[in-house]
Amino acid sequence: MTQTNKGKLYGIGVGPGDSELLTLKAAKILSEIPVICSPRSAPDKESIALSIAGPIIEKRKDIEDLTVLEPVFPMIEDSLTLEKHWDEAGELIAKFLDKGIDVAFITLGDPSIYSTFSYVQKRLENSYLIEVIPGITSFAACASSIKKPLVEKDEVLIVIPKIKENLERLMENGDTIVLMKTSRNKKELENRINHQVREKEIFSVENCTMENEKIVNGFLKNKPYLSTTIVKFKK
Amino acid sequence: MTQTNKGKLYGIGVGPGDSELLTLKAAKILSEIPVICSPRSAPDKESIALSIAGPIIEKRKDIEDLTVLEPVFPMIEDSLTLEKHWDEAGELIAKFLDKGIDVAFITLGDPSIYSTFSYVQKRLENSYLIEVIPGITSFAACASSIKKPLVEKDEVLIVIPKIKENLERLMENGDTIVLMKTSRNKKELENRINHQVREKEIFSVENCTMENEKIVNGFLKNKPYLSTTIVKFKK
Repeated sequence: MTQTNKGKLYGIGVGPGDSELLTLKAAKILSEIPVICSPRSAPDKESIALSIAGPIIEKRKDIEDLTVLEPVFPMIEDSLTLEKHWDEAGELIAKFLDKGIDVAFITLGDPSIYSTFSYVQKRLENSYLIEVIPGITSFAACASSIKKPLVEKDEVLIVIPKIKENLERLMENGDTIVLMKTSRNKKELENRINHQVREKEIFSVENCTMENEKIVNGFLKNKPYLSTTIVKFKK
Repeated sequence: MTQTNKGKLYGIGVGPGDSELLTLKAAKILSEIPVICSPRSAPDKESIALSIAGPIIEKRKDIEDLTVLEPVFPMIEDSLTLEKHWDEAGELIAKFLDKGIDVAFITLGDPSIYSTFSYVQKRLENSYLIEVIPGITSFAACASSIKKPLVEKDEVLIVIPKIKENLERLMENGDTIVLMKTSRNKKELENRINHQVREKEIFSVENCTMENEKIVNGFLKNKPYLSTTIVKFKK
């Protein structure tokens, strides 16, 4: 496998929302890279990751020469359709890599934690050099916003992206439970957490670190896309 | 509670090791703040967080005026002795805050996840303004280094800082298990993970994102302080 003439793919986490939470490394790469790929959920929707990276990209002197790719990754459950979208994005990126042009795939939060980057990564990792730049995860940012430690000493942290059959066993065995993307979860989730007998504190954060950030005790009534709930059980 | 004449305390995560993984926000505050507090584990040991922030601090034009506090937080289990150290650090920081001087407490990784910042935060949060700046967690950085997604889709992530009685139940109910600070864990932990019947991949990272980073399949033979193990169970 010769990769010397090929471009390199960067998977870059842009963090939870505040552009100042990009790492120095991410900002440096995004100031120089010739191609940025940032998926959007629908053709008429803005890419959130791209808007977070916006202030860095806007400062570029060579902004006219920058190519921005915005493939659509719809928020659906149908895996066959999704696979098709990921294949197409992989092929789109590969065209640049094959010409020796580096590409940065940017993603909300961190590229290794519930990120669409992993699907593109799997399609390209055997043929191209890949470097992954970690980002601030939403749950670390939410804990910073509510100013409460997420976990201390020997506490166990459990991160759940979707309601699970074993939710009760997870709640019995963890100290702090993070519920990611709570917009996908129904009233059933709240009921099952409220029914857990252990004493607990519940905090939810909407649009964490963004200008319209909102912190509430308990669950959010409406469930926007960017929302996270932290359940802290007492000993 | 009037805080207007008092200084503000920043809890800042400096990330896992690479100075380029500081956030833009952390770098900006550390370029301007008059006092930086960075605990060390022993009087003769260098503070790891301070060495990570080093390249930012060294660039300061006002470096002669910068005060660096390095209280000792020994790595011991005796909670009474630890409380005494945390009390003293809190009092030391409060002296500056009372004079209206801002202080940045820097911490490895993220200040909300197994960080000593939480102990200082609890002592000062009722009397002073506090802002927490999240940092890159070691486990997100390790996943980036090994170039494997930590969790995808509806997978459950479990982070364990120390061997627990309920380790088996946690392994049965999670998809990816992160073992933090594996230096504190004995052979028993490895045996119990190896005995878990589910098919799994195990990766360990030593000194993640640092110049002497080392990635191994399985467990690390020697267990340095900065080591993390990722266990990915197959479905």
